[in-house]
Amino acid sequence: MSASRKVVELFYDVLSPYSWLGFEVLCRYRNVWNIDLRLRPTLLSGIMQGSGNKPPGLVPNKFLYMAKDLGRSARYFDVPLVTPADVAHVMFVKGSLSAMRLLTAVSEKDLGQETRVEKLSRELWMRIWNRDEDITQPASLSEAALKAGISRQEVEELLQIITSQPIKDKLKSTTQEAMNHGAFGLPMTVCHISGKPEMFFGSDRFELMAHCIGEKWVGPQPMASRL
Amino acid sequence: MSASRKVVELFYDVLSPYSWLGFEVLCRYRNVWNIDLRLRPTLLSGIMQGSGNKPPGLVPNKFLYMAKDLGRSARYFDVPLVTPADVAHVMFVKGSLSAMRLLTAVSEKDLGQETRVEKLSRELWMRIWNRDEDITQPASLSEAALKAGISRQEVEELLQIITSQPIKDKLKSTTQEAMNHGAFGLPMTVCHISGKPEMFFGSDRFELMAHCIGEKWVGPQPMASRL
Repeated sequence: MSASRKVVELFYDVLSPYSWLGFEVLCRYRNVWNIDLRLRPTLLSGIMQGSGNKPPGLVPNKFLYMAKDLGRSARYFDVPLVTPADVAHVMFVKGSLSAMRLLTAVSEKDLGQETRVEKLSRELWMRIWNRDEDITQPASLSEAALKAGISRQEVEELLQIITSQPIKDKLKSTTQEAMNHGAFGLPMTVCHISGKPEMFFGSDRFELMAHCIGEKWVGPQPMASRL
Repeated sequence: MSASRKVVELFYDVLSPYSWLGFEVLCRYRNVWNIDLRLRPTLLSGIMQGSGNKPPGLVPNKFLYMAKDLGRSARYFDVPLVTPADVAHVMFVKGSLSAMRLLTAVSEKDLGQETRVEKLSRELWMRIWNRDEDITQPASLSEAALKAGISRQEVEELLQIITSQPIKDKLKSTTQEAMNHGAFGLPMTVCHISGKPEMFFGSDRFELMAHCIGEKWVGPQPMASRL
């Protein structure tokens, strides 16, 4: 089976709530569709700056709709998403640089093994997009990493290396890779089909994505038939 | 059955290609879902101006993605969409004011009877988004209307009244109604559920829409089980 498995890359940032929806759905489908899912921690602010895109929330009607759409989609997708009280401050002032560097560092250590990247991503999302907690301070990152099952000793080591040049560069190069695929926001999913990348933006193209990779979309709660 | 039919309003402009996708899908589902579909010709440029929204194509990566996504979606939805050669000129210089006034006039004449509005909308979309033909000149509008089965005499009459104040005002008031529902672009679908309007933007929320109105989404080509 593995020879024919299609590589599907998910470029995401824990700052992005639609990324959370896409992440949970693809993690659920990882064993339903014949895919090799690769989690790619990316910096949203780098994508927005690089593409010249503006946050949708700057248009008042779009902001109101997004709040509504997010709530409705999160319930339908069964993701416990709760918008932080001061979402503008959380997204545009505090940001996610350290958090995404931490995920990059774990991803680099665990090459090809994504269990801890998945767990840590979810813990970070639970902090910011469920409990309205900080994800910028070392203590916050440490707490999320411990909950994700990383040992205290390794957490301390990780918090040291997230400001090292190789980790900074790796997050930059992943973000650049997303840009090269045509990103202008996150999440972005790239399906590699017969050597050709097919890019999907957002968390509302799963049905089309399934069609493109020759699989079936059966809604946000599939039975993991290939488990 | 009719007592429990949910009113679903589609606000659209023939200038908008995603509106075409939404229009065809809802026309197909009109007899599959227990809904009373109401076609609401709206002016896209009015919505963009009123909401302060900017066309997505201004961000280069978004423009490239939209072209790709539109092609992929149109094939999946089986709508014969072909992008006009000079799409910026067609959308931002020529526009759709007369065409949407003509649809408004037919809609006003046929209150509650939407067959001709549906046919004429499709003919206009075929001109602009399939054959790259004009939709601004009286001869173009006339040709589309004749193809939609409207008599030559009535077409002449319609072309007279599209510059009358009541028709201008009606298109304005429909556009304002869409704004009041929170529009920032088109298509916008409003489902009236127990007296409460639920707004959906774009042509990628049908699965969620189905869930909200208690119906089932079975992909873009449903069998019309209630025909």
